[in-house]
Amino acid sequence: MSIPDRTMRWWGWGDPGHHGGLPVPALPLLQAEVGLGTPPPRPTLDEVRLPDIALPAAVRDRLVAAVGAEAVRDDRESRVLHAGGKSYPNLMRLRTGDASTAPDAVVSPATSEQVKAVLEVCAEAGVAVVPFGGGTSVVGGVDALRGTFNAVVSLDLGRLDAVRTVDERSLLAVVEPGLRGPELEAALGDRGLTLGHFPQSFEYASIGGMVATRSSGQASAGYGRIDANVLGLRCVTPTVDVVASTVPGTAAGPDLRELLMGSEGTLGVLTEMTLRVRRAPDEKRYEGFMFPSFAAGSEALRVLAQEGVTPDVARLSDEEETRVSLTIADDGGLKSQLGRRYLDLRNVSGGALAIVGWEDTVERVGRRRDATVDVLKRYGAIGLGRTVGNAWEQGRFHGPYLRDDLLDRGVMVDTLETATTWSNLFTLYRAVDAALRERAAVVMCHVSHIYPGGASLYFTLFARQDAEDPIGQWHRTKVAAGEAIVARGGTITHHHGVGVDHAPWMGAEIGDGGGRVLRAVKAELDPVGIMNPGKLLP
Amino acid sequence: MSIPDRTMRWWGWGDPGHHGGLPVPALPLLQAEVGLGTPPPRPTLDEVRLPDIALPAAVRDRLVAAVGAEAVRDDRESRVLHAGGKSYPNLMRLRTGDASTAPDAVVSPATSEQVKAVLEVCAEAGVAVVPFGGGTSVVGGVDALRGTFNAVVSLDLGRLDAVRTVDERSLLAVVEPGLRGPELEAALGDRGLTLGHFPQSFEYASIGGMVATRSSGQASAGYGRIDANVLGLRCVTPTVDVVASTVPGTAAGPDLRELLMGSEGTLGVLTEMTLRVRRAPDEKRYEGFMFPSFAAGSEALRVLAQEGVTPDVARLSDEEETRVSLTIADDGGLKSQLGRRYLDLRNVSGGALAIVGWEDTVERVGRRRDATVDVLKRYGAIGLGRTVGNAWEQGRFHGPYLRDDLLDRGVMVDTLETATTWSNLFTLYRAVDAALRERAAVVMCHVSHIYPGGASLYFTLFARQDAEDPIGQWHRTKVAAGEAIVARGGTITHHHGVGVDHAPWMGAEIGDGGGRVLRAVKAELDPVGIMNPGKLLP
Repeated sequence: MSIPDRTMRWWGWGDPGHHGGLPVPALPLLQAEVGLGTPPPRPTLDEVRLPDIALPAAVRDRLVAAVGAEAVRDDRESRVLHAGGKSYPNLMRLRTGDASTAPDAVVSPATSEQVKAVLEVCAEAGVAVVPFGGGTSVVGGVDALRGTFNAVVSLDLGRLDAVRTVDERSLLAVVEPGLRGPELEAALGDRGLTLGHFPQSFEYASIGGMVATRSSGQASAGYGRIDANVLGLRCVTPTVDVVASTVPGTAAGPDLRELLMGSEGTLGVLTEMTLRVRRAPDEKRYEGFMFPSFAAGSEALRVLAQEGVTPDVARLSDEEETRVSLTIADDGGLKSQLGRRYLDLRNVSGGALAIVGWEDTVERVGRRRDATVDVLKRYGAIGLGRTVGNAWEQGRFHGPYLRDDLLDRGVMVDTLETATTWSNLFTLYRAVDAALRERAAVVMCHVSHIYPGGASLYFTLFARQDAEDPIGQWHRTKVAAGEAIVARGGTITHHHGVGVDHAPWMGAEIGDGGGRVLRAVKAELDPVGIMNPGKLLP
Repeated sequence: MSIPDRTMRWWGWGDPGHHGGLPVPALPLLQAEVGLGTPPPRPTLDEVRLPDIALPAAVRDRLVAAVGAEAVRDDRESRVLHAGGKSYPNLMRLRTGDASTAPDAVVSPATSEQVKAVLEVCAEAGVAVVPFGGGTSVVGGVDALRGTFNAVVSLDLGRLDAVRTVDERSLLAVVEPGLRGPELEAALGDRGLTLGHFPQSFEYASIGGMVATRSSGQASAGYGRIDANVLGLRCVTPTVDVVASTVPGTAAGPDLRELLMGSEGTLGVLTEMTLRVRRAPDEKRYEGFMFPSFAAGSEALRVLAQEGVTPDVARLSDEEETRVSLTIADDGGLKSQLGRRYLDLRNVSGGALAIVGWEDTVERVGRRRDATVDVLKRYGAIGLGRTVGNAWEQGRFHGPYLRDDLLDRGVMVDTLETATTWSNLFTLYRAVDAALRERAAVVMCHVSHIYPGGASLYFTLFARQDAEDPIGQWHRTKVAAGEAIVARGGTITHHHGVGVDHAPWMGAEIGDGGGRVLRAVKAELDPVGIMNPGKLLP
């Protein structure tokens, strides 16, 4: 596994040298069903409009004293790169030259003590602090909002990137927050270990960001969510460090880990995490399966999760996502052929494509696969083999690059996700699908995280971009989805986090009581309110 | 499974008709190694000293208005039965006629709304409220302490005992807190389901109490701790209801469930819980195994937990517990013979007895057993067969009855538990063992809850009772153990909870930061401080 350079394109995702990769067959489909446009060319970095720097010189001097001169940057590129994450509105603002959410400075502490010093300076001076890991948020979680303060700094945690200790006997690793996914996997891989956490943002996401936002990886069925793999935490706040000691199980009161995870930088900065790691698998085997319908496939996934024969990767597309995937697949038409063969075979109008994977010893992959396939076949699945699975693996982190290409062609593309119980899954699915279809030409969905009690739903939508008001268009779509989700009992986010974009529905999610609890904790740890204003609970 | 009557003996554990059952071979061992005494006879109920009732008549009238006259009791028996739980000091106090921790009244709401009404009355009047489920706490968690208030009521949740809904498709059950373990299992069993949560207190413990104290059952290796099986919660507090909605997985901020679980009634009253349930197993198979040593057996358990071939029950005694168990077993000497046969066979001076169990379909029990036994044998285990396993099953809930018998014979008996990482397990084991041996004649230990990252340690100790100061003797022993645990990085409690007895070490467990967080939440939800004063965080 190669380790990417950390710096992403300021106007989009990932590797500056990446050449895009919208599959050739996608264009006709998009032209016919969505419509393409020709947005104005992207501005150069110099053309982007930045707010004047509002950080007082005296405060800047104190920050320099805390972390060193080279660790306080306010050059144009640093500020633009820390203006936000990689949500659709983040990208559209920058593509139209608007970096109004840029910080006044980017501060890069190298130690937990420096983090503490920076928070003390900012609390005293009344400067907002936005913790910044990989910068991959798709919900506005790292937008450098200043709230009621005049100035804001982005706290880049990239220098806090050590693997402090690895306890191979207990299979625990103590790591710092700024480490990126591939960096941690490389360090663990040297010892034959893995975290097994591979969200789509894996190549750029930081471990601290994953924990702070309760990330969930593509192999969550096997490895569990990130929150299920954190045994200890240290959170440096403006007032006091909160330390949840590393323990495999305890009855010593409320679980502080679970209060800090998901706090999204609004309480403090996670400077150290103890993670459960595992022996790296000898084999990774991914296969495609075609179900007669999304409903049949969902039943199969439910049974897998409830009968304890869960694979490590379980991803099921609905009929629409299956159709679009098979049509636009950039593999010489292979998937399309497979799909057509299936459709011919079954004489049905649609099918639901599943990717199922196992990561384990060779012997156990074999045995577990047999148990999984037994269940899949009970629900009508036809095996499509490893070629389809490998194609998924090849492209598993490429979605955000495709989005950049679509933006270049005037397409609004967004994704959103929720989760609910198995009983409620199709009620929620139909409601969100219907709400989105009023605003988007293509709406597709997959289940990618399964639990004994329920599953996630992940929607992708394409619409012709409203060239006059792209963000307004996006916002109306988001509101329609959010309202449909809360009306039908879904969670407002299964793994993207809350940030700015989901905050309007936090009240619906956690109620008045939950809001009062979280605000009381915030008032205790961050009484001045400098930590990530405008996020989570505005 | 029979459902016991809920009311326990006021001076001890369980069924008033129970005839004890200290095995005959135990007496010579205790006489020789511990020494027996002849404590004075237990007082009659009428002889127990109760505090004068301090609840003002006007407040009592308001409570009657809230819940009905028959649901506010202040008769002698009700007060004594709610004076505390079933810890050694609880029992010793009552056995010496001291019911000074009895409440002024026992209030029994029938609905969530009545709970709310009671809390409102008590907050206004300044009356402490102690939520009371099954009354099985062994850490003082339900002692009716009044804190800074003049009066205290015990809030008996026994009438809130409905199974509200069962969602068989999502395998979720919504239940009320006052339901006892056997009652829930009977209701679920009618549908072919189980919760799978069997702590030693199972026959009398309430579901609300289990959740409020983060209980862990004897089959936790398979079913997980109770906290791993709660998907939704409602907590009625003096100010606002906190509701954690039922969702299988979410990234919507800090996890409120995990803040309410383990709160031990100090924030409010859990009036509704959504629990993960499972298909009831077709087969339960328990077997005995003998390891050459506790160290070898621990290695085997570590590998089971880390390699994903965990059985549902995994319990391993150290050499001392093995010796005592085999000596005092009340089965015609069968276990003793097995033990001797093993010892003869191996020509070693000691061994470590394990009970390992599987609860699943017949086919899966067979397959999973094979995988487990492969690992056990790698570490030198010799199978002792199902007879030993069945004997464990027969006696799995009887420990507290034995304790009563020992108290009758002047023996101090206590249990205490901790957990840590695998790397630290033997350091912690040796330190606690050494601390206890200075104060107790027999000190024995078992591992009964295993995780990929570590395991629990459960100590049992016997000492000749100090007839002059039995509670002082117990307290000195407890302090020695607590200090050893925190000095060596163990958690202060793996599953007994904090209550009064572990509260002195909460500071060591959660630090200044954790304490401030929990106090801030308490101040928000219970500003008057009426909820279970003196517990968790005094």
